[in-house]
Amino acid sequence: MTTEHIAKDMMQMLGRQAKAAAAAMRMADTGSKNTALKLAAGMLRREQDEIIAANAKDMQAGRESGLDAAMLDRLALNEQRVEGMAEGLEQIAQLADPVGEISNLSYRPSGIQVGHMRVPIGVIGMIYESRPNVTADAAGLCLKSGNAVILRGGSEAIYSNRAIAACLRRALADAGLEQNAVQLVDNTNRALVGELIRADEFVDVIIPRGGRSLIERIANEARVPVIKHLDGICHVYVDATADLTMAKAIAVNAKMHRTGVCNAMETLLVHAAVAEVFVPMVVAALREAGATVRGCPRSCALDKSIEVASDADWDTEYLDAILSLRIVDDLDAAIAHIARHASGHTESIISEDYSAGQRFLREVDSASVMWNVSTRFADGFEYGLGAEIGISTDRLHVRGPVGLQGLTTQKWIVLGHGEIRT
Amino acid sequence: MTTEHIAKDMMQMLGRQAKAAAAAMRMADTGSKNTALKLAAGMLRREQDEIIAANAKDMQAGRESGLDAAMLDRLALNEQRVEGMAEGLEQIAQLADPVGEISNLSYRPSGIQVGHMRVPIGVIGMIYESRPNVTADAAGLCLKSGNAVILRGGSEAIYSNRAIAACLRRALADAGLEQNAVQLVDNTNRALVGELIRADEFVDVIIPRGGRSLIERIANEARVPVIKHLDGICHVYVDATADLTMAKAIAVNAKMHRTGVCNAMETLLVHAAVAEVFVPMVVAALREAGATVRGCPRSCALDKSIEVASDADWDTEYLDAILSLRIVDDLDAAIAHIARHASGHTESIISEDYSAGQRFLREVDSASVMWNVSTRFADGFEYGLGAEIGISTDRLHVRGPVGLQGLTTQKWIVLGHGEIRT
Repeated sequence: MTTEHIAKDMMQMLGRQAKAAAAAMRMADTGSKNTALKLAAGMLRREQDEIIAANAKDMQAGRESGLDAAMLDRLALNEQRVEGMAEGLEQIAQLADPVGEISNLSYRPSGIQVGHMRVPIGVIGMIYESRPNVTADAAGLCLKSGNAVILRGGSEAIYSNRAIAACLRRALADAGLEQNAVQLVDNTNRALVGELIRADEFVDVIIPRGGRSLIERIANEARVPVIKHLDGICHVYVDATADLTMAKAIAVNAKMHRTGVCNAMETLLVHAAVAEVFVPMVVAALREAGATVRGCPRSCALDKSIEVASDADWDTEYLDAILSLRIVDDLDAAIAHIARHASGHTESIISEDYSAGQRFLREVDSASVMWNVSTRFADGFEYGLGAEIGISTDRLHVRGPVGLQGLTTQKWIVLGHGEIRT
Repeated sequence: MTTEHIAKDMMQMLGRQAKAAAAAMRMADTGSKNTALKLAAGMLRREQDEIIAANAKDMQAGRESGLDAAMLDRLALNEQRVEGMAEGLEQIAQLADPVGEISNLSYRPSGIQVGHMRVPIGVIGMIYESRPNVTADAAGLCLKSGNAVILRGGSEAIYSNRAIAACLRRALADAGLEQNAVQLVDNTNRALVGELIRADEFVDVIIPRGGRSLIERIANEARVPVIKHLDGICHVYVDATADLTMAKAIAVNAKMHRTGVCNAMETLLVHAAVAEVFVPMVVAALREAGATVRGCPRSCALDKSIEVASDADWDTEYLDAILSLRIVDDLDAAIAHIARHASGHTESIISEDYSAGQRFLREVDSASVMWNVSTRFADGFEYGLGAEIGISTDRLHVRGPVGLQGLTTQKWIVLGHGEIRT
C-alpha cells in the first residue's frame, strides 16, 4: 500500500472512532466532564517526570534537526509548564458548562414556545505546531464543550504530545467517559493532514494554529469548514481628545508587553491635532522600551529618531519591537486607514470623546474593537473564556478568541401542546 | 475572450461593487433601511403590471423549453404573489434591527468591560432556482441585516428577477442607500455560478437554495463558506404516554398539510406499547387524507393496508403523500433510528412523559427538536424570524431557519479606562 492509502485508512479509523465518541460526549453530564478534567490535571502532575523525559527526546531531535532557538523554546517543557497545563485543565473544570443551555424560549402567536439550546459541534480537527501545551488546552476545551477532538500536533513534538494525550485519555476512561473523545494522530506521516482536512464525513470543523503559510494551505485544500486565524495587524488610534498619558502607556504596552504575539500593536495612528505634543512623547517612551519606530513623512518631521516607513510597512505584522506610526487628519482618516490595512484582528481607540468612541466601536470591522484599552487584552483568558483554542479572523460562526462557546452551536427547540399548521 | 474569462471579469466587477456597498450598508441606520424596504414594497405594487408582463416572458420560454407543471407553478407570478412579496418586505421593515445590538457587556477582574456587538456578515451570494419571490425575500433580509447581496436566480426566471431586483435597487437609491447592496447576476452564463462560489476575495458566504444535486455541487466546488440545506427526512415519534388523539392529528398534519416541503414528516415511529391501538387509528386517518403508508413487518401485521417498506424507505425524502412507519420498542430505539436515518432537519416527540420529552430534546441532534408539535412549524415565519433566506442543515454558524440573525455575526467590544497588561 502507498503512504496515501495508509494515511486514508488510518484517518478513516480515527474518524469513525471520533464520531462515535462525539455521540457519547454530547450526552455526557457536567459532573463527569469536570471529573475527567480534574483527573487529567492530577495525572499530568503525577506523570510529570515521564512527560519531561518524553519532551527531552523531542528537544534532542529538534536540536539535531536544527530547530531555531525560538522553536526550541516553544517546544520545551519543564515542571512549571507541566503545572501550567494542569492548572489550565482545572480552570476549564471551573467554567460553566455551555451544553444544554436554553435561551430565549418564548411564546409565538400559534401557541408554540420557541428557543435555542446550545449543543456541541461534534468532531473537531486540531492542527498545530511545536507547543505541547496546546495538546492539553485543546483537549480540555473540547472535552468540556462535549466534543470529540482529533489532535494533529507537530512532528517535532510527537513524544511530548503522546505523553500528554495519554494522560487525558486515561482520565476520560477513569471518569467513565469515552477515551476516543481525545485522539492523537500518533504518526508523523504528512499525508495524514491532507486526509484530516478532507474527512468531511467524520470531522465537523478544522482549527489550525500555526504560521500563515500552513493556515492558507489548509484553508485552500480543506473540504471541512475551517476556523482560521491569519495575521494580527493591530492598530491603536490616538484621537484628538485622548488622555495623552493614558495613550502613551497603552501604546508602549500594546507594542512592547510581548512583541511576538498576534494582539500586539503594529501601527499607531495619531490625530494631527495632538501630533506635535504626542509624537515626540510617545516615540521617546517607545525607544526607551526598546522599540524602533517607522513613520510617515509628517511624523518624521516631528522626531528625528523616526525612520521613514515604506508602503509595505502599513501591511506588515512585525511580531518584533518595531512599529509603524502615521499622523491622520481626523477620525475618518483613521477608520479609512484601518479598513485598508488592518487584518480584522483587534483595534483600539484612545479618546475621551463620546461620539468618536461610539463611531469607532460601530464602524471598525474587526473581531475585537476597543476603547481606551491595550490591544493585548484580546485574549480568551482576559475575556473570561478560560483557555482559548484559537483566535478567529473569519467572519462566520465565531470571531476573535474561541473558547467553549465557539466550540458549540445552537439548535432550535420547540415546545407545544398539540399545535398543527392550518 | 472565452466565456470563462467574461464570467470572471463580470464577477470581479459585481464583487468589487458588492464589497463597497457592504461597507456602506454596514453603517446604514435602521430608519433608512426600513424606508428602503417600504419604498420597495410600494414600487413592487406600482410596477405590478410590468413585473407580471416580464414573468409572462419567462412562462412562455418555460413552456417552450418543456418545464413541468410544478416548475411552472413555482415560476408563475400573479397579482396575489406580487402583493405577497410587497407584504413580505413590509414585514421585514417591522422586525427589530439586529445590527449594533450589544449583549453580555460585563466587567472582568482587570477592570475592562467585555461584550458582543452584532454586525452584518458582509457580502452574501445567493443562488436559487425558479421562484421569483426569493429575489425580493432574500434582498429584503440582506438589506435589513446590513449586508450586500449578489443574487443569482435561475435562468428560467431571468425576466421576472430583473424586474423585481430593479424595484429593490430604485428603492435603495431613493432611500439614500447604496444601489449595489442588491445586485442581480443579469446573465444566464453558467460559468458565473462557478466564479461566484470561488470569489472568496469578495463574497463572505454562499446560500444556495435548490435541489440536492445543485447544493452538493456548490458545496464541493466552493471556496467561499456555504450555508447549505440538504434533505429534510423528518421524524415524528409517538411515545408510550402520548395523547393518541393529539398524536394522530400531528401525524396527519406533519405528513399531509403540504407534502412537497422539507419540514414534512417522512417517517412515523410508534412505541410498541401503543402500537396495537395507535397504528390502525393513525393509518386510517392518513389513508383518509390521501397518504400511502409503508411499514415495518410488525406494523404490517397490525393493518393490512400498510405496504411493506424496503430498507431504502427509511432514508427516503418522499416529498409526496407517502410515509414510512416503524414500531420501536422504546425511546432508545426511537432515538437510535433517528440518529441513523434522520437528515438533521426536524424531529418531534409526542409524549406526556417529562423524562422522555427532556431526553428527546437533549439527545436528538437535529436543527429543530420538538415536543408535541407538528414538524411543519420548522419555519422562519413560525419561529418569529419574518421571512427566511434558507434553512441550514449544517452545524456551524446557524442551524435551521435562517433569518436576520443568521445573516449577522458578532464582534467583541471592549471598554476600558486605560487598562494595560502587566
